[in-house]
Amino acid sequence: MNMGIERISSGDLGESMGLTASQIRQDYSCFGEFGQQGYGYNVVRLRAELATILGMEQKHTAIVIGVGNLGRALMENFHFESYGVVLTGGFDLNPALHGKIFGDVEIFPLECLKSFVKENPVSIAVLAVPQAVAQPLTETLSKLGIQGLWNFTNVEVKPCDSATMIVENVHFSDSLLALSYMISEEGDGTK
Amino acid sequence: MNMGIERISSGDLGESMGLTASQIRQDYSCFGEFGQQGYGYNVVRLRAELATILGMEQKHTAIVIGVGNLGRALMENFHFESYGVVLTGGFDLNPALHGKIFGDVEIFPLECLKSFVKENPVSIAVLAVPQAVAQPLTETLSKLGIQGLWNFTNVEVKPCDSATMIVENVHFSDSLLALSYMISEEGDGTK
Repeated sequence: MNMGIERISSGDLGESMGLTASQIRQDYSCFGEFGQQGYGYNVVRLRAELATILGMEQKHTAIVIGVGNLGRALMENFHFESYGVVLTGGFDLNPALHGKIFGDVEIFPLECLKSFVKENPVSIAVLAVPQAVAQPLTETLSKLGIQGLWNFTNVEVKPCDSATMIVENVHFSDSLLALSYMISEEGDGTK
Repeated sequence: MNMGIERISSGDLGESMGLTASQIRQDYSCFGEFGQQGYGYNVVRLRAELATILGMEQKHTAIVIGVGNLGRALMENFHFESYGVVLTGGFDLNPALHGKIFGDVEIFPLECLKSFVKENPVSIAVLAVPQAVAQPLTETLSKLGIQGLWNFTNVEVKPCDSATMIVENVHFSDSLLALSYMISEEGDGTK
């Protein structure tokens, strides 16, 4: 869409993602009929339909827990709004950060978390805290009724049993090991 | 292993990862025989064998390109050495950073990249630069013969045609959209 393309075939779509045309068609068929035989996909309409499926129009709100280097990088450089998510606050223990604005969003004391969430419903908490406090904070967040946890701590965390909070992990380690595996294979000359 | 467990069944291993025993056995069988019927897996030996497969013993070296908040977070908080990777330098345009030490590793001017790589072979470049310069830097890095690019820029990048550099993307957006999808489904009451 950004390239001004109006329609595209499943073959061309697949090529841009390293997939086959039939993988594209099969995946889309799980959700309905987006294309037209012989015409392909209308790019604007396809994007809109995928955005709906992905929940991008549900005005999800997010807060960042832990505004160290990583939390700050996400607040300042990651375009939450491009994915339909509105960032509403950052939380940190460090008093030097309180009242600061990163990426248009204010940093509050961690002790204000509970009252903030009561007054401003939050769908997603972005967890970017030290590993030692990841689990207790996950339990707190799940008790507050937050729907989704975006976990950047590189450790496994578990919500309270009574909560329905969904955890999505960004495990840098898995990705680095995948890369390590692939370049080691290359070096072997086995690929 | 950290929990002091000496042997484990494929069922217990699977449970800890949300997989079935047979998925675990099937995946491992792609690489050889790690367990023993009725005994399970010797945890220390399994870890060592997986580490070898993943290339963790090949002493891969890495440099970070772009030491903004994200680059700095990776240098200071991500344990490269736990995954068998030795971080040897950071590179940035900003003169205020040159000579600084983050996580035991020095930051050099970006213009020193070429000579550094000639003198200190680098297996992996961690790309944490602004999106506008991601593609030209990818081409430069691929021409320098770096084997793997760990791409944190959230844009697709392409090495030079003549290069064999492998790109591993950490696309935060895919992960956020997956979470958005899952919590939207939950809200529907369809799950």
